[in-house]
Amino acid sequence: MSRIAYVAGQYLPHSQASVHIEDRGYQFADGVYEVVAVSGGRRIDDDLHFERLERSLGALDIPMPMSRRALAVVMDQVLRLNRVRDGIIYLQVTRGQAPRDHAWSGPSSPVLTVTARRQSPPDEALASQGVAVITLKDQRWKRNDIKSVNLLANIMAKYKARAEGAYEAWLIDDDDLITEGTSTTAWIVSSDGQLITRPLDEAILGGVTRAALIHIARAAGMEVEERPFSRTEALAAREAFLTSTSAYVLAIVSIDGQKIGDGTPGPVTLNLLDRYRRHVSGNDFSG
Amino acid sequence: MSRIAYVAGQYLPHSQASVHIEDRGYQFADGVYEVVAVSGGRRIDDDLHFERLERSLGALDIPMPMSRRALAVVMDQVLRLNRVRDGIIYLQVTRGQAPRDHAWSGPSSPVLTVTARRQSPPDEALASQGVAVITLKDQRWKRNDIKSVNLLANIMAKYKARAEGAYEAWLIDDDDLITEGTSTTAWIVSSDGQLITRPLDEAILGGVTRAALIHIARAAGMEVEERPFSRTEALAAREAFLTSTSAYVLAIVSIDGQKIGDGTPGPVTLNLLDRYRRHVSGNDFSG
Repeated sequence: MSRIAYVAGQYLPHSQASVHIEDRGYQFADGVYEVVAVSGGRRIDDDLHFERLERSLGALDIPMPMSRRALAVVMDQVLRLNRVRDGIIYLQVTRGQAPRDHAWSGPSSPVLTVTARRQSPPDEALASQGVAVITLKDQRWKRNDIKSVNLLANIMAKYKARAEGAYEAWLIDDDDLITEGTSTTAWIVSSDGQLITRPLDEAILGGVTRAALIHIARAAGMEVEERPFSRTEALAAREAFLTSTSAYVLAIVSIDGQKIGDGTPGPVTLNLLDRYRRHVSGNDFSG
Repeated sequence: MSRIAYVAGQYLPHSQASVHIEDRGYQFADGVYEVVAVSGGRRIDDDLHFERLERSLGALDIPMPMSRRALAVVMDQVLRLNRVRDGIIYLQVTRGQAPRDHAWSGPSSPVLTVTARRQSPPDEALASQGVAVITLKDQRWKRNDIKSVNLLANIMAKYKARAEGAYEAWLIDDDDLITEGTSTTAWIVSSDGQLITRPLDEAILGGVTRAALIHIARAAGMEVEERPFSRTEALAAREAFLTSTSAYVLAIVSIDGQKIGDGTPGPVTLNLLDRYRRHVSGNDFSG
């Protein structure tokens, strides 16, 4: 079976899925995206993704390409055509095609593309062994709360991390505080078992998994404090982990080569992964 | 005559010029570009553009898609097919197509696209009347020395400028110093006639017109100081202007609604525009 992609109104073979070279997404990174997890054919945390998509588009003055309801129909159709029951949906909306000019004018005809692929998050080996992260200076722009495709600093940092054998890079702002990973949210567990993650501001993306996990943890009676933390505090933390739509809850066992805790995934992280898995599979009635 | 674009090895009707939705330029802003002025069929300051292109690609570990010589042949062919003798060439190189993943691996097959269009820079009315700029906080990433398509902050600032009736926005860094315009270099003329522009660092693009103009001004016996300047200093300047490949040398007659000098293009700016025009037309044997 060949893969099918949705591009601006048409369902096309993946190999023919293309956009014009003067799509502003291609020339100016003038667009936003979402990655939605799919489990057992069900889209996870739909409303949070729709809300964030509308918020990102609103920040850029790009209209929604269609209603939430119509978008859900397209996503489900892409899932069906690709026979994806467990995996991810990727959707991108750009301002659309226009003769190249930094300034844009007139009404936009946004371009929507949607793809889906099978994937079994999280990787079992990674989840049981944990991963390494390195820290790097945050070189991104100042509106990371917008989930845009303006991702060059993110991929450069991810590249450096992988070149050094790490899974992810945690980014450090001008105040020496950790913002987030290049595509994941950063968390630590304090010595008294509190979960700590940076509060929402323009330096980080409001992760859907982050929001869901805060809810799940509090429902389970755990304490969550939203405050910034430094590299020094992270190195001294009892546990550290990252979250994302595709990685779920992933233990961090070293930062810049220094062991976190005893260097294996900690009990709080594994407990949260277990709870998050139940949330995704629909068996968690608290979440 | 219909327009023709070069896309990854083919010359195509502009309407059919497309790239795959998984081109990393589209999903991650993972690419760079150049805009080359053309006058009388001749490409202006070729070597400076090639050098910068190679430097930008090098910073991202993207290979040159072909030799300088082959690239020059493609650009000339695009000019001929579109019958452009005076105008601009736009060329973009991305890391190419790959299944979506922040991390990339293996050798890249960069994708080159080239277009050309007629244009008579600079706009005569603008040149004789001058333009307004506003100042805004610089929200871009920290590697603006790379001429990448990671331009979302640039276009958002340009949009704000145009919405307020200004031609351009000058961006202000965390130290309250002006970096540059969203797509142009920022200059002022001091009370003793010195040209002042920010020195090259990672906060600004090394403009080709900037480099050419420094050379031209010095050859004409003018003093050029490369140092940062603030909004306060700009407001008190005798003259202010901007430069770019497509705007040439354009007088700024107001900043944030406050008149610069007497509110008309000043003699130093007009002198530089005249000298730059001769450089472009090939009649300047000093430059």
